[in-house]
Amino acid sequence: MASGCKIGPSILNSDLANLGAECLRMLDSGADYLHLDVMDGHFVPNITFGHPVVESLRKQLGQDPFFGSLLSTFYLLSSVCPDAMPPSYPTHFFFLDLDMHMMVSRPEQWVKPMAVAGANQYTFHLEATENPGALIKDIRENGMKVGLAIKPGTTVEYLAPWANQIDMALVMTVEPGFGGQKFMEDMMPKAGANMIVSGSAIMRSDDPRAVINLLRNVCSEAAQKRSLDR
Amino acid sequence: MASGCKIGPSILNSDLANLGAECLRMLDSGADYLHLDVMDGHFVPNITFGHPVVESLRKQLGQDPFFGSLLSTFYLLSSVCPDAMPPSYPTHFFFLDLDMHMMVSRPEQWVKPMAVAGANQYTFHLEATENPGALIKDIRENGMKVGLAIKPGTTVEYLAPWANQIDMALVMTVEPGFGGQKFMEDMMPKAGANMIVSGSAIMRSDDPRAVINLLRNVCSEAAQKRSLDR
Repeated sequence: MASGCKIGPSILNSDLANLGAECLRMLDSGADYLHLDVMDGHFVPNITFGHPVVESLRKQLGQDPFFGSLLSTFYLLSSVCPDAMPPSYPTHFFFLDLDMHMMVSRPEQWVKPMAVAGANQYTFHLEATENPGALIKDIRENGMKVGLAIKPGTTVEYLAPWANQIDMALVMTVEPGFGGQKFMEDMMPKAGANMIVSGSAIMRSDDPRAVINLLRNVCSEAAQKRSLDR
Repeated sequence: MASGCKIGPSILNSDLANLGAECLRMLDSGADYLHLDVMDGHFVPNITFGHPVVESLRKQLGQDPFFGSLLSTFYLLSSVCPDAMPPSYPTHFFFLDLDMHMMVSRPEQWVKPMAVAGANQYTFHLEATENPGALIKDIRENGMKVGLAIKPGTTVEYLAPWANQIDMALVMTVEPGFGGQKFMEDMMPKAGANMIVSGSAIMRSDDPRAVINLLRNVCSEAAQKRSLDR
C-alpha cells in the first residue's frame, strides 16, 4: 500500500479447477486486489464463470481478504505520521478486493446477483449498455464500487462524460475474450494508469511476487515522472 | 458397475472455488460420471462456467478418472465369467466421465472448445437449436458422445425422432438454471431412467456415498420391476 499504484492479477489463465487456492496464492504474492473475468459467450466468444463461482470464492477468501495488510499499513502509517491519518479508514483508504470485469452482453442482469455473491466492484463495458447512468446508479445502490471498461476500438472520449461518477476506468489493451494475448502498445496514449491488470505474466510466472513488484514499481515511477512533468 | 444404473452428481451446488477437489470427492464416493452444468445467462438466468474451467478440471482429474474402477470391474468380471466379456472393452463398456449439460442459447458454438477442453459427452437442449441433426453430427465428429436434453415443458414426443442417434436423453425434472430445486413429480411418467443426475442431495450430504448407493439401488430395482412387468 506504500505506492499509489495497485496491481490486480487476472485469474483467467490460472487453474480454474482450484480458483480458491489460486486467489490465495495471489494474495500471498502481494496482489492489491483480484480481477475476475466474467464472460457469457455473447459479449465475447468465451464463457468463463459467473456469480455462483464468486459466491464460493468469497466464502473461501472471507469478507476482507486484503484487510490484514491494509490494517498493518494503517498502523505503520499512523505510528510514523499520526496527523496524516484519516479519522476512519474505510471511506478514505483504497478498499477493493474482488473486481468483476463483466464481459457480458446484459450487464444490468447481474448487478444484484454479484452483490449478493460478494463482489465489491462491478466493472461493466460501455459498449454493452445503452444506459450507463442507470447502471451506475444500480451498482451503487447495491453497495458496490463502479468500474467502466472500454474495448481497444473505443476511444477515451466516450469515457469522459462518466469520469466523475465512477471509481475506476478500465482501458483494455487486448481484445476481451481470452488470456495470454500480446499487449497492444498503441493503447498507451489512452491513459496514465495507476491500476494495472495483468494475467498470464503474473499467474504463470515462477515468481509472481517479483512480477507484481516490478509492475508496481514501473507504474509508480511513471506516475511520479508524469507528476514532475506537469 | 455391477448395476445398469448410473449416477452422475451435478456439481452446481458444490464449492465452485474448489471444483477439482469437489469432483475428486464425488469420484471417491462412487459416482459413475460427473454432470457439469454449463450456463451462459441467456438460455437460463444464471452463468456458471464454460470450457476454460473444464480444461482445468480435466488436467486435474487426468484423462481417465473413472478408468481405475472400470478396469477393476473388467478384471473381476473376466475372471468370474470369461465368455461373457466383450473382446475389447471401450466400445462395449459404459464409458462416460465428464458430461456437459449445455444450458446455453447457441450450443453449436461450444462443441469444438469443449472437445478440446476434455469433455466426453455433449448434452445440448432440443429447445436451443433449430438443427439438432447437424449438431449431433458435429459432436460425433469432435469425438464426443451425444446427449439430448428437454426442459419440463417439452414432451418426450419431440425426443423420439432423435432417439436412435443419441447416447443419452436427459429429461429435466426441474426448470434448468439453479440447483437445490424441488423434484417435479409430474415428470415421472416421461421416462424409465437408467441414469440419474442429482445435485444438492449428493453434494450437500454428509455421506454422499450412501446417497449415491441409495439412488443406484432404487433405480436398479425399478428397472428390474419394469423388466418383469413386460
